[in-house]
Amino acid sequence: MRIVGYISNGRRWVGSLENGMISPLGTVEEFYASGGKLSEASAAPVKHEDVEEVPFVPETARIFCVGINYKSHATEAKEVGGIDEPKVPMIFGRWESTLVTDGTAVPVPPNEPGLDWEVELAAVIKDDVWNVTEDKALDHVLGYTAFNDLSARNKQSETLQFTLGKNADRSGPIGPVLVTADELPDASNLRVMTRVNGEKLQDSNTSFMIHSLPKIIAYISDTVTLRAGDVIATGTPSGVGAGLNPPRFLNAGDVVEVEVESIGVIRTPIVDRADL
Amino acid sequence: MRIVGYISNGRRWVGSLENGMISPLGTVEEFYASGGKLSEASAAPVKHEDVEEVPFVPETARIFCVGINYKSHATEAKEVGGIDEPKVPMIFGRWESTLVTDGTAVPVPPNEPGLDWEVELAAVIKDDVWNVTEDKALDHVLGYTAFNDLSARNKQSETLQFTLGKNADRSGPIGPVLVTADELPDASNLRVMTRVNGEKLQDSNTSFMIHSLPKIIAYISDTVTLRAGDVIATGTPSGVGAGLNPPRFLNAGDVVEVEVESIGVIRTPIVDRADL
Repeated sequence: MRIVGYISNGRRWVGSLENGMISPLGTVEEFYASGGKLSEASAAPVKHEDVEEVPFVPETARIFCVGINYKSHATEAKEVGGIDEPKVPMIFGRWESTLVTDGTAVPVPPNEPGLDWEVELAAVIKDDVWNVTEDKALDHVLGYTAFNDLSARNKQSETLQFTLGKNADRSGPIGPVLVTADELPDASNLRVMTRVNGEKLQDSNTSFMIHSLPKIIAYISDTVTLRAGDVIATGTPSGVGAGLNPPRFLNAGDVVEVEVESIGVIRTPIVDRADL
Repeated sequence: MRIVGYISNGRRWVGSLENGMISPLGTVEEFYASGGKLSEASAAPVKHEDVEEVPFVPETARIFCVGINYKSHATEAKEVGGIDEPKVPMIFGRWESTLVTDGTAVPVPPNEPGLDWEVELAAVIKDDVWNVTEDKALDHVLGYTAFNDLSARNKQSETLQFTLGKNADRSGPIGPVLVTADELPDASNLRVMTRVNGEKLQDSNTSFMIHSLPKIIAYISDTVTLRAGDVIATGTPSGVGAGLNPPRFLNAGDVVEVEVESIGVIRTPIVDRADL
């Protein structure tokens, strides 16, 4: 099933997308409270083109991002930022408030040279996960999606903590759909790519991750109880703008696309703040 | 006005606390959507002792914490963690899911020697704040509260990012009340203290902050639009458990109290996870 989020009667709903039609699955709260139960829809289908899309997770979802989780990116992060490859998953947080859907315009913060791109595979959690072992971790994954971890590198690098640089307004394009795990049984071998104005700048595969998704989930879950709807963004490979010589960033007029195999493409136009 | 959060008919409400009675101000959503309008209550007062308390901010609130923001703590952080004093506010994030009220029992995560205490003054934001200057920043503060930034030091120090160590389940005691800014016009000169089982282990004053609250708000707001209900935790002075020789941490049976002058005391019993 390929799930999208949308607004219906002022509330956030999720539905199953097929051939341009959305079959409603329930409100986001109902859906995740039931552990992402994949019931057949009872409400009437709606046209995809007629709805206002929103992220398919609850507004209380936590976004757990993994920093430096591909060997190739570890090399450029060491060269550019002086950061060593972490021996355990290096987790930083995003708030759900930063998430936006496919096609949403994203502004550049005023004191940045632009935004940087980071294609990532992300997993969405199905139910409460406390202190799980690696071999059971994937039982708690509802499905997978693509994520663009758009980064404000000035703010990110002014202190040791990535938080502000990773939470700029609208800086978390996610989607275009949430593909349920039954349709994507092996997410550990998927091609991931970024294109900027059509030019391919990242091209790798999730098989090159340093810390696997089960390891990441297990590592988080002995401290934080994961909840239904939480997102795990698994890190980006090499090819980010800060690693290029000279560095290159996204500014108004640019269009960035991230793609994850079997999931789809998120297209993000970059705009001036004044044009929002 | 001294504000508490509580559950009424299954929803999160806020009310004004006086002489053991709560005068309802509206649901948390209504209250913050109106910019924390301090209207007179229309619903009937309820007894404080009869309600289930919850944090007085929305479940979508973001908690912006400042790391190493007192000179005295900078010294111990350098000695223990090798971390230099940040030249700008070092912001890490908490999710609202970690917030708990006065008296709530908090468990120690399994792979930690205990939890560490950190008394902090925290500010709650009143309305949207985008790219504000320091001289206007305090206009956007609804009020002040006390915060105990309970820390899982193992997880905090295993990578550069503090996020997991600062988001252990229930690790954010906040309260006991939100004191509105009209009642606390100068929060830059308040005594802050921590007591563990009655023994005073932190004792300082908000006047010793490195980065002032207006500077912190301005620094965040050129990247992230602050929203009504967001919390700014302004950092802790010296005297944390990791800085003692030998280090000392909270474990089951301990009771930690943090106090901020003119606001009050938050009392937190530490328990075994199995006893929750």
